[in-house]
Amino acid sequence: MRTRVTELFGIEYPIFAFSHCRDVVAAVSRAGGMGVLGALYFTPEELELELKWIDEHVGGKPYGVDVVMPAKYEGADAGDAEELLGRLQAMIPQGHRDFLEGLLAEHGVEPPSEKANRTLLGWTDQTARPQVEVALRHDIALLASALGPPPADVVELAHEHGVKVAGLASTARHAGKQVAAGVDIIVAQGTEAGGHTGEVSTMVLIPEVVDAVGEDTIVLAAGGIGRGRQVAAGLALGAEGVWTGSIWLTVEEADTPERALPKLLDATSRDTVRSRAWTGKPARFLKTAWTDAWESEASPGTLPMPMQFMLVSDALPRIARSGDGELVTFPVGQIVGSMNKVKPAAQVVYDLIEEYVEAVDRLTGLTNAE
Amino acid sequence: MRTRVTELFGIEYPIFAFSHCRDVVAAVSRAGGMGVLGALYFTPEELELELKWIDEHVGGKPYGVDVVMPAKYEGADAGDAEELLGRLQAMIPQGHRDFLEGLLAEHGVEPPSEKANRTLLGWTDQTARPQVEVALRHDIALLASALGPPPADVVELAHEHGVKVAGLASTARHAGKQVAAGVDIIVAQGTEAGGHTGEVSTMVLIPEVVDAVGEDTIVLAAGGIGRGRQVAAGLALGAEGVWTGSIWLTVEEADTPERALPKLLDATSRDTVRSRAWTGKPARFLKTAWTDAWESEASPGTLPMPMQFMLVSDALPRIARSGDGELVTFPVGQIVGSMNKVKPAAQVVYDLIEEYVEAVDRLTGLTNAE
Repeated sequence: MRTRVTELFGIEYPIFAFSHCRDVVAAVSRAGGMGVLGALYFTPEELELELKWIDEHVGGKPYGVDVVMPAKYEGADAGDAEELLGRLQAMIPQGHRDFLEGLLAEHGVEPPSEKANRTLLGWTDQTARPQVEVALRHDIALLASALGPPPADVVELAHEHGVKVAGLASTARHAGKQVAAGVDIIVAQGTEAGGHTGEVSTMVLIPEVVDAVGEDTIVLAAGGIGRGRQVAAGLALGAEGVWTGSIWLTVEEADTPERALPKLLDATSRDTVRSRAWTGKPARFLKTAWTDAWESEASPGTLPMPMQFMLVSDALPRIARSGDGELVTFPVGQIVGSMNKVKPAAQVVYDLIEEYVEAVDRLTGLTNAE
Repeated sequence: MRTRVTELFGIEYPIFAFSHCRDVVAAVSRAGGMGVLGALYFTPEELELELKWIDEHVGGKPYGVDVVMPAKYEGADAGDAEELLGRLQAMIPQGHRDFLEGLLAEHGVEPPSEKANRTLLGWTDQTARPQVEVALRHDIALLASALGPPPADVVELAHEHGVKVAGLASTARHAGKQVAAGVDIIVAQGTEAGGHTGEVSTMVLIPEVVDAVGEDTIVLAAGGIGRGRQVAAGLALGAEGVWTGSIWLTVEEADTPERALPKLLDATSRDTVRSRAWTGKPARFLKTAWTDAWESEASPGTLPMPMQFMLVSDALPRIARSGDGELVTFPVGQIVGSMNKVKPAAQVVYDLIEEYVEAVDRLTGLTNAE
């Protein structure tokens, strides 16, 4: 397979795999795709260790790092992370805190601990910038930015290091903003994707974005990509590669929380919902008692980003390790319906390619037949 | 192009075009696809005239008819259409009637007339069955059933006339029920489609349905199909043809209501919403003051099918021809974003094929390149 993506990065398959697990990142890159490590949950010090490990295990293959720098959020003008944290904490209504603790108690989840609560980790310019600096000290191929175009100086810094920049977009308009910010690659993500996502489906979105960004920008298709047929469809729509996330949650190398994994394996494509309960912006999650509660009559509604995340971020690990398990959820796309078996990451890559080739052969055959 | 669909029906392109306008149906069939006339708004007598016209103008090419026989609805056990109508009318709360009339008055829409109100037209077994009988008196190639599998005797009747039966499905489970009912062709419709539609996107749904129905059943991809790249993507996903609806609303031959047309041409892919306001089951519509009102705080909520339709069906023509126009809406998919120009239906068919061939050529080229 050859697209501008394979040529640009020197990879065999234009398949990007987003994961928070370094083992998955390394495995996908070694198998011929490109793993991209999500930096969200790591302090700069932790990220340094993760990237060092990947450098030692990726067999010299290219990999990327993904950071989150939302373009617009409450308190965006604060100069100091500590001060910002304090101001935002104060803006969280007690009624919301009470609702949350009530919900957790109802499901037998352990009470909050005294531990320092790093609630803004990775969600703001202040916390993401040090992550970018760490990432650029390693020989990464790609810096990806979720939730909006990265600041111009970050793009410039990456380019100075010979690193390409990717931006996620859920509308053609967002894609345009990313291009204006100097981004090299647009990850056009349809509504069916896991995590933060818009309303327009991949089928409709990809051709719009490809046309909107013009010849000089590369587009990757994301959302609903889990099988070779979908890789073929994504490329048929005009993309030059695909960006995948959900399917790596159920591979052997992933450290997906123990109580979430069976739910992912059992879920059908109808068992997800776009919910604001995690961060304040709509994100697709497995539908469970957690997502239901925030939409119920009793819910106080969700807070804007980043306060909703500050409110719930401490609760999520508590839910993962205690209580009846009914609240346990995970960000995942509608592709979860075809995620029914744990396989090695390399196997997933090979299965994707095998079915991709079959799909293209079939398509070519039926097109050329008289 | 050659798939089981082109061979089965003797058509050039496996492109099905659903429309309520006989001119569109005839034009698409003449251009090498297959037009399918939606029977919903016609009495049996009117349908007879429409089909006679198509017979005289379709140039001997195959065409189909689509009827609506919901599998489950209130009052499904009533034996008599008149009695059923009466019982259902009585179940509509006055509060809902008041909300509706208040909304219409607010927008300057003309008051209700004295005219007989055919509120159950085409929505039930009782009303759809005579339409089937009319359709089968003509030389149609296909009988399609929206909203659930047709009754077994209808399938049998169609088959006795040498007519194939298609059923629409928005989940793999629905598709299975259609197959069990003897349906020959499944139209697998993703969430991005116009009109009644489920939650799973086309990208995710098509491979699921193809796998679920097995070798003997043909699958058509629907939802988000408006350009050749999307036809290519639908086939890449495993379908043997595509079913399209929205794109025919803005062709020259269509009789789309005058005040809806500019809204359709101006709309982006983000300007639709799944709303229960039309029939009680979620259907994708252009987002306007109509859809907003039913979701607002003041709304009494929507009624189950078919009572919601009985409640509003008289209002929709009044909204179309009077008042400030802000309530005017139309069932349409997210593909509306690429519907920006009125063209002849035949041109739309040719543009689809031209871009389809380009997309497949490109895909083949990049796949085979070393």
